[in-house]
Amino acid sequence: MYTTETRIRVRYAETDQMGVVYHGNYFAFFEAGRGEFIREFGFSYADMEKQGLLLFIVDVHCKYIRPARYDDLITIRTSLKELPIHHKVEFYSDVLSEQGELLASGKVVLYCMDAANMKRSTLPEPFLEKLRPHFEQTNN
Amino acid sequence: MYTTETRIRVRYAETDQMGVVYHGNYFAFFEAGRGEFIREFGFSYADMEKQGLLLFIVDVHCKYIRPARYDDLITIRTSLKELPIHHKVEFYSDVLSEQGELLASGKVVLYCMDAANMKRSTLPEPFLEKLRPHFEQTNN
Amino acid sequence: MYTTETRIRVRYAETDQMGVVYHGNYFAFFEAGRGEFIREFGFSYADMEKQGLLLFIVDVHCKYIRPARYDDLITIRTSLKELPIHHKVEFYSDVLSEQGELLASGKVVLYCMDAANMKRSTLPEPFLEKLRPHFEQTNN
Amino acid sequence: MYTTETRIRVRYAETDQMGVVYHGNYFAFFEAGRGEFIREFGFSYADMEKQGLLLFIVDVHCKYIRPARYDDLITIRTSLKELPIHHKVEFYSDVLSEQGELLASGKVVLYCMDAANMKRSTLPEPFLEKLRPHFEQTNN
Repeated sequence: MYTTETRIRVRYAETDQMGVVYHGNYFAFFEAGRGEFIREFGFSYADMEKQGLLLFIVDVHCKYIRPARYDDLITIRTSLKELPIHHKVEFYSDVLSEQGELLASGKVVLYCMDAANMKRSTLPEPFLEKLRPHFEQTNN
Repeated sequence: MYTTETRIRVRYAETDQMGVVYHGNYFAFFEAGRGEFIREFGFSYADMEKQGLLLFIVDVHCKYIRPARYDDLITIRTSLKELPIHHKVEFYSDVLSEQGELLASGKVVLYCMDAANMKRSTLPEPFLEKLRPHFEQTNN
Repeated sequence: MYTTETRIRVRYAETDQMGVVYHGNYFAFFEAGRGEFIREFGFSYADMEKQGLLLFIVDVHCKYIRPARYDDLITIRTSLKELPIHHKVEFYSDVLSEQGELLASGKVVLYCMDAANMKRSTLPEPFLEKLRPHFEQTNN
Repeated sequence: MYTTETRIRVRYAETDQMGVVYHGNYFAFFEAGRGEFIREFGFSYADMEKQGLLLFIVDVHCKYIRPARYDDLITIRTSLKELPIHHKVEFYSDVLSEQGELLASGKVVLYCMDAANMKRSTLPEPFLEKLRPHFEQTNN
């Protein structure tokens, strides 16, 4: 398992009239967290896409525990629990308040596709290479 | 079970650079579908809220099968499979293309709360009364 | 001048914690209105884009008079005041409440570009042909 | 004049199928910039609202020069050119690329309202007090 953290300041645009973050907006927070996860390994999803790889979202889930509110400085804790050896990549995301309370917990399943032929692919080998050591450790 | 249908024209604002509807935006489509579901019974969620009832989102799920694209005229098929006798309300949403293909399938779980004391509540009795016959029928 | 009308039901997702539609979301309403404007002439912006034409947004303005709220059934009145003979297209958008009150008034300036060479272009001739009679009349 | 800077990483959610940030989303960037502007003086708009002050958006404008794209690390440069002595507050926002190029330039006009009676108000005196020195200098 490998985990990274991203901090996000909640925007007014992201709230709804209940005075909380609209539930659908958490998926953009998760996405920001995945972007930072990839960047922490020296890659970027923007570059992967330019090189012909697409990560399609195939399944999402989110459980809401406590509301995030405008101006809150939340933390997105993004985890990969298993090394994605095939085309399937599963990211787990926890949203935490500044006080460390769990606000929401989600999971996003992506399929790695080769844009050239729209066939399933694995993540780029150089990225997998950097991920591998972190998962070997947990297998000891 | 009771099902209603809502048609939505996909906006450019809802697409992302992959040329498809951004996954997080489906939850606003589901929400529009729930609004129409309630309206079909002569009620509105806007009025319920004014009368002190809140429907909190506690859990969402969505499975993406085929992408919806800009300008597509999609149908949101919103179903209540069980009569919500307690505070929990579960809506199922299917997104269909104009050709009737299933694009995405989701579920949203809401808790009915009394805004005055923030305690769990049931749906308003007049609304439940109108729902009941549709669920009694299926129990015969 | 030619004007079309589009009706939109305000979504919860589009509100903010002030209980009104977030100001940035009006531009998606205007966009929906422009899409319907084009469709009313038997064309679609989706098709234009597939045929290699891009409409870039270069300038927007919006004045907010009265707030639109959740579940409001608003009307977007989209007008072209001048026939766009060059690359520049200017759409005017008024947002009206169900009672006909003016809620907001905006203007969006777009540049028509040829995607192949990224040079400025005019609108497709078949579309201009259908627009022309409506503007000739006003010049009499 | 007083200017603050906020850095924002563009999300995939904010792009559209043209591969650029959707024009309506710049207003959420400007809003994030205004929030940081206020915070730099030791206040927060969230607190102001809790204390009964509302800042209504009455007019916005944006000119788009070069597109911002997914994963870009943009800078929002937020300026107050005049001390808001009455209810009207005008914020100017420039969006800059990581290389310092101007991507977009906007202006947002807000009216300060007392939530209790919905009458026009000034900004809170303690905030104005901190702003004043920065504007007195420019009047010398």
